[in-house]
Amino acid sequence: MDRQRLKQQLAFALEIDKEKNVLRQTHLSGQGRRENDAEHAWHMSVMAYLLREYANEPIDIARTMIMTLTHDLVEIYAGDTYAYDAEGQATAAERESAAADEIFGLLPPDQATELRGIWEEFERNETPEAHFAHAMDNVQPMMLNDSNDGGDWKRRGIARSGPASRNAVTRLGSAELADYVDEVLSKHVERGNLRDE
Amino acid sequence: MDRQRLKQQLAFALEIDKEKNVLRQTHLSGQGRRENDAEHAWHMSVMAYLLREYANEPIDIARTMIMTLTHDLVEIYAGDTYAYDAEGQATAAERESAAADEIFGLLPPDQATELRGIWEEFERNETPEAHFAHAMDNVQPMMLNDSNDGGDWKRRGIARSGPASRNAVTRLGSAELADYVDEVLSKHVERGNLRDE
Repeated sequence: MDRQRLKQQLAFALEIDKEKNVLRQTHLSGQGRRENDAEHAWHMSVMAYLLREYANEPIDIARTMIMTLTHDLVEIYAGDTYAYDAEGQATAAERESAAADEIFGLLPPDQATELRGIWEEFERNETPEAHFAHAMDNVQPMMLNDSNDGGDWKRRGIARSGPASRNAVTRLGSAELADYVDEVLSKHVERGNLRDE
Repeated sequence: MDRQRLKQQLAFALEIDKEKNVLRQTHLSGQGRRENDAEHAWHMSVMAYLLREYANEPIDIARTMIMTLTHDLVEIYAGDTYAYDAEGQATAAERESAAADEIFGLLPPDQATELRGIWEEFERNETPEAHFAHAMDNVQPMMLNDSNDGGDWKRRGIARSGPASRNAVTRLGSAELADYVDEVLSKHVERGNLRDE
């Protein structure tokens, strides 16, 4: 047995434990505490499995699941950038690429290349798996926020155009889920939880 | 589009958010707070993907991943039973079976049957996928506890026979990982973190 290889794999496995301390802006259902990246990734991955019948194109579910599970690992070093923080988003790509070198570099070379490639595939968002993973990345927090009467939007005075432009990305992965999200967003505009424009 | 079906799927997806509030006895690395079930499942699933080369038999990785992601959902209603709580373990099976009816029953019938079946497969532990999922269920907290100098064992005065008997289960899934765990356990006995017998 190649102990050096196992040690590298376990060093990576231990390091990613830190993702549990990266907090997001989304709150758990029941007006709960803020969600962390590991919880978000878990939820996305279960949802990808359950909802894959709605993908616009056939997807490799194992690839989609590992993509959802690892898509935010770079945030261990680069931090979470809120979807509607334009300034943060502008510098996020560079910070996240350096973070990817660092985190995936802990793995044996073949797995470092593979997992970094899956992360880059998510970021480029050009494949059916990446499209569906992005759909889950949007639908999961939308679902929680909907359950909390739009609290995360209200708290920050978000306008409908924010989640609506994210929903255009969701539509690349699943037209059916995007239709559903459009209905939910309309409901929250009516309720005054999202600013109308 | 079958909205009734999607509504059932999303009702389940929202309900399982509660798994993020089920606390385990394991503490996060860096002497962190207690881990929750969703974080544990996320971590297990990533590790299953990364470490699948060590499985004794070939495994269907997508099935193993959804198994690891959902194996503790019953604890939303039945609570977490600590591995070394003999009294709790004695009644856990009955409580968890009722909980499985409740949680998986939220899904459309085909998916309820499928996911309950995957949970039962995990519980019976007779397939290569279940064996490897159990190996991850043991190796993941062992790794965190090792990183914390055996704090979770010391705190509760655990004897070596506890994790050693769990490691016999790990061995069904991966002889190589079980060998590694044996070495780690010996180190912690030497350090006085696990009681020798």
